Amino acid sequence: MPIDLDEALKAIAHPVRRDMLSWLKDPQRHFPDQEHPLEIGVCAGQFDQRTGLSQSTVSAHLATLQRACLVTSRRVGQWNFFKRNQAAIDELVRRLGEEL
Amino acid sequence: MPIDLDEALKAIAHPVRRDMLSWLKDPQRHFPDQEHPLEIGVCAGQFDQRTGLSQSTVSAHLATLQRACLVTSRRVGQWNFFKRNQAAIDELVRRLGEEL
Repeated sequence: MPIDLDEALKAIAHPVRRDMLSWLKDPQRHFPDQEHPLEIGVCAGQFDQRTGLSQSTVSAHLATLQRACLVTSRRVGQWNFFKRNQAAIDELVRRLGEEL
Repeated sequence: MPIDLDEALKAIAHPVRRDMLSWLKDPQRHFPDQEHPLEIGVCAGQFDQRTGLSQSTVSAHLATLQRACLVTSRRVGQWNFFKRNQAAIDELVRRLGEEL
């Protein structure tokens, strides 16, 4: 599925959202304290701690990244776990290189 | 001068502005009717014609691109002429490849 370039660019036009994507490259390093296995993704609450932002702000940032297809999420019990959508990010960088 | 990544990403998160940057890659092809020499840049009025948008809308799009340092402008008489800032665009694509 091709990404929506406008949506993806707006999503990454914020330093916190770029940080979040970057941390998801190496969850073991950036979220060593998570109790759930990192294989299922990084829990939203971990981002609250890492950013120092409120739960609702973090939630909004994650929703923006997810709408743009740059992360995928999985719900387990009461928690949402997030992973990078590497294919979409690669496509974004590739298309920018071509179209700009 | 390093670009402001947030500003640059917001600037290119609009299809018309990406089109404008793309047309400026090859002004001879996209603006063959301009009377002034294309070496000084492409006149704002040429974008009005090419996009079919109003002068004030085009003006706002060009100002956004210029604030983000993705185009440079030069005033000659009553006209403003625009060129791609290729170094800034290259830096933008490079940094995205690294940071995302």
